[in-house]
Amino acid sequence: MEVERGSVDGPARPAGCPAGEAASGDPLPGRRSVDFPVAAVLPAGGCGERAGIATPKQFCAFLNRPLLSYTIEAFERVAWIEHIVVVVAKENLHQMMDIIQQFSHKKVTVVLGGSTRHRSIFKGLEAFREQSDGVTLRKPEVVIIHDAVRPFVDEDFLLKITVAAKDQGASGAVRPLVSTVIATTSEGYLDHSLERARYRASEMPQGFLYDIIYRAYQQCCETDFEFGTECLHLASHYCGTKAKLIEGPPTLWKVTYKQDLFAAEGIIKDMLSHNGCVVAGGCAPSVQLACELQKTLEARSMQVDVISGPPGSRAVLVSGTWNFIHIAVDSSCLDDMAKLVKTFQDSKHAVLYPVVLILVHLNLQPQCSVTERMRALGAIRSLATEAKHGNILLYGILLSRDKALEQWDESMENVAQIIAALVKDRNPGLVGQLLVA
Amino acid sequence: MEVERGSVDGPARPAGCPAGEAASGDPLPGRRSVDFPVAAVLPAGGCGERAGIATPKQFCAFLNRPLLSYTIEAFERVAWIEHIVVVVAKENLHQMMDIIQQFSHKKVTVVLGGSTRHRSIFKGLEAFREQSDGVTLRKPEVVIIHDAVRPFVDEDFLLKITVAAKDQGASGAVRPLVSTVIATTSEGYLDHSLERARYRASEMPQGFLYDIIYRAYQQCCETDFEFGTECLHLASHYCGTKAKLIEGPPTLWKVTYKQDLFAAEGIIKDMLSHNGCVVAGGCAPSVQLACELQKTLEARSMQVDVISGPPGSRAVLVSGTWNFIHIAVDSSCLDDMAKLVKTFQDSKHAVLYPVVLILVHLNLQPQCSVTERMRALGAIRSLATEAKHGNILLYGILLSRDKALEQWDESMENVAQIIAALVKDRNPGLVGQLLVA
Repeated sequence: MEVERGSVDGPARPAGCPAGEAASGDPLPGRRSVDFPVAAVLPAGGCGERAGIATPKQFCAFLNRPLLSYTIEAFERVAWIEHIVVVVAKENLHQMMDIIQQFSHKKVTVVLGGSTRHRSIFKGLEAFREQSDGVTLRKPEVVIIHDAVRPFVDEDFLLKITVAAKDQGASGAVRPLVSTVIATTSEGYLDHSLERARYRASEMPQGFLYDIIYRAYQQCCETDFEFGTECLHLASHYCGTKAKLIEGPPTLWKVTYKQDLFAAEGIIKDMLSHNGCVVAGGCAPSVQLACELQKTLEARSMQVDVISGPPGSRAVLVSGTWNFIHIAVDSSCLDDMAKLVKTFQDSKHAVLYPVVLILVHLNLQPQCSVTERMRALGAIRSLATEAKHGNILLYGILLSRDKALEQWDESMENVAQIIAALVKDRNPGLVGQLLVA
Repeated sequence: MEVERGSVDGPARPAGCPAGEAASGDPLPGRRSVDFPVAAVLPAGGCGERAGIATPKQFCAFLNRPLLSYTIEAFERVAWIEHIVVVVAKENLHQMMDIIQQFSHKKVTVVLGGSTRHRSIFKGLEAFREQSDGVTLRKPEVVIIHDAVRPFVDEDFLLKITVAAKDQGASGAVRPLVSTVIATTSEGYLDHSLERARYRASEMPQGFLYDIIYRAYQQCCETDFEFGTECLHLASHYCGTKAKLIEGPPTLWKVTYKQDLFAAEGIIKDMLSHNGCVVAGGCAPSVQLACELQKTLEARSMQVDVISGPPGSRAVLVSGTWNFIHIAVDSSCLDDMAKLVKTFQDSKHAVLYPVVLILVHLNLQPQCSVTERMRALGAIRSLATEAKHGNILLYGILLSRDKALEQWDESMENVAQIIAALVKDRNPGLVGQLLVA
C-alpha cells in the first residue's frame, strides 16, 4: 500500500456547484452534526470498457482534469470526512499519484486494488487496519463507499447517508427506475416485466458502520468476490443489517458511457458560467463601465460582483468565481494584467478549474485606435501563452467610446455576448485573441 | 387530427453521426431489405418534470433545434419508413407545427395525444385507420414505437427491430442494467436485490406487427391506460406475442435529466467537428495554403477535403460536412464570402445543423496589414450578422506571410487550433470576429 497526502488548502468550489457552499465544521441550523470519525473508500479500478474508450473513464479528463479528481474534490471539501481511500489498479498507480500532486489533494490515501470490485473495496477497507509498515489511518465509525465515476455527490446527501448508516448500520442511495426492467428467456424473448413502482435502482454512495461492512467482507465467499457487485447485499446477507434507502438526486448518476463524459463536462462548464467578478481600475470611466457591464451581464443571468482596487490585490480572490473581467482605460494595462495573472498563480486559484480572465480595453481616443489595438494584440498574446500554462485563459475585448448613444448600448450588448461566449466554452484554443465589441 | 407534410428534401446527416451514412432505398449487401410498409409513432406528450426544467424536454433546443427534431430526422432519413406520427399535447401543437416548418420535416403527421403515455400511443396508432376527415395514412405492416427523447437511433438498429417485429410479431431494444435493481420494503429498507445478469432494461425503439399492437390497445383496460408504460407487456398480455429482445447501443439512452441534454449536445457537436472542407481560390498561394492546412488539420484528427473552384459553386455542398474554410489571398474577398453564404442559404444546407464558415485571409503584404485588417473587420461583421440569421456562423482568421519558416509553422498550428476551437464550440456569440493566427 502507498500513502500519499497533500498539504495545500483545497480551493473553493464553484458557487453553483451541486456540492453546495464551501464546507465548514459547523453544522447548518437544524442539521445533525457528525461527531464521530468518518472516512470514504472510492473504488477506481474499473477499466472503462463500457465507455468505448481506451482510457478508464475515471481517468478521462475534461477542463484539464480527470473525472476522478472531481469526485475526490467532492469528498475532500467535506470537513467531517477524515480520510479518502482511493483504490486503483497497479497500472494506474503513477497516474493516480500525479493527480494527487497536480490537484493538491490532501486527504487521499492510495491503495492497490484487487481483480474485482468487491476485492478492491475490501482492500480499501483494510487500509484502516494496522499495516505491516506501521502506517495507520484512524478507523472510522462510518465508512462511505462511493464510485469514483460519480463526481456530483453533495455534502447534504453525504450527511444523510452517514447519519442513516450510524443509526441503522447501513444505508444506500436509490433512484427511481428510468426504464422498465424485464426478465428475459434464455432464447432472448420477453419473459415478464417488473412492476416499476416496486423497484429502485441502487446507486452510490452507500454508508456502513465500519465494523459491519468489514465483518461482512471477511465472511465473503469466492462467488461473492468474483461475481458480486452490491455491498448492501453483503451487509444484509452476512450481518443481517438491512440498509436504510434514501432517494438521491439525479446528479448521482454514474459516468458510464462516452455521452456521460459530455454530460459531466456540460454540468461543470454550466456551473462555472453563472457568476463573475469585474475588476475596475481607479478612474471614473472604468468604474462606470464596470457598473454598466454588471447590469448587462445580470440581464443574461450572470451574477457579477464589481471590485475596485489595485490590480495585484488578493481581494479579487474571495468571491468564489472563476471568471474575471478586468477593465482598463486608454492604456496598454498589460502590467496590471500580468500582476493579476501572478496573483492567480500564487494563490493556486486555478488549480481545480480554469480561470477565465478577460481584459476589456476601453478606448477613449478613437484616432489612435488601429495602432493601439495592434500593439495591444501583440502584448496580450505572449502573456496569454504564459498564463495558459497555469490554467488561466486570457482573452481581450476592445471597446471604443467614439459612438452615438444607441451604438454604445449595442456595443455593451456585444461585450456581454462575447464574455458569455468565452465563459461558457472556456476554450483554450482562443486565448490571446483580441475581440472587438 | 392535423396533418402536415413538408416537401423539401431533407439535408444529409453529419458523417460521424450515429445514424450512419445517408439512407438509400437499396439494402446494404447481405442486409435484409424492407419490402413492406413501415411507419413510426413517436409519443411526445411528456411534460419534462423529471428534467427539472420548465420546457418539456423534447422541446428543449441545442444548436438552435429542439431535441424532438433530431429524433424525427433520425427516422426521416430512413428511406423505407413511410410515415412518422408524432403525438403531442394540445398546448404544444403550434410549437410542433413550427418545428415541422422550420426544419423542413416531410414525413410527419401530427396527432393530439391523450392524458397518459398509453393513451397517446393508441391515438398515434389510430392515425392509420380511416379518418372522419377523409385523410388516411397507409396502414403499415410494421409500426415502430419510439420515444421522442431518444434522438440517436440509427438505421441499422431500426432495421433489426423492424425485421424481428415482422418475423416474431413484436420486438424491443434492451440494454444491460447499469445499476443493481433492488426491491424495497414499505418502510424504505432493502428487501432484496435482483440478480443483475437475469434482467435487462427495456428501452426503445420497439417494433410490432401493426395488427397485433392495435388489437392489444383495443383490449386495454383502464388500469393499463392509466398506469401502464410497457408496450411489450400489452402485446404479450392481450395477444400472447412474446417480443424478441435485441441489445441496442448505449446511444439509445433516454434524455431524461438536465445532464442528458448536455450529453446530447456534446454528441452532436462532437459529430459535427470531425470533418471539414477547405475551399481554395484559383491562385497558387491559396491552393498551397489549402493543402498545408489540410495536413495540419488532419494531424488533429479532422478529415478535410480541399475543393478549388469558383466561390458561388454548389460543388462545396456535396461533401456532407458542416465546416467550411474559405481561403483568400490579399483581397478583401468579402464578395466571395457573400456568394458562399448565399449558396448555403439557397441550398438550405444549414437548416438542420449550423454551418461554420471560416474566412482565412492570407496577407502577403505586411506593410499595409493594420489598415487592411481593420477594414476587413468592419466588412466581415456585417456579413456575419446577416449570415447568422440563416444558421451560418461566420468567423475570420488573419494570417501574415512576413515570417521566417519556423514562425510560419507556428502560424499554421495557430490557424488549425483556432479552426478546431471554432468548429468544436460553434458559438454564435463570437461570429464576425477576426482572429489572428
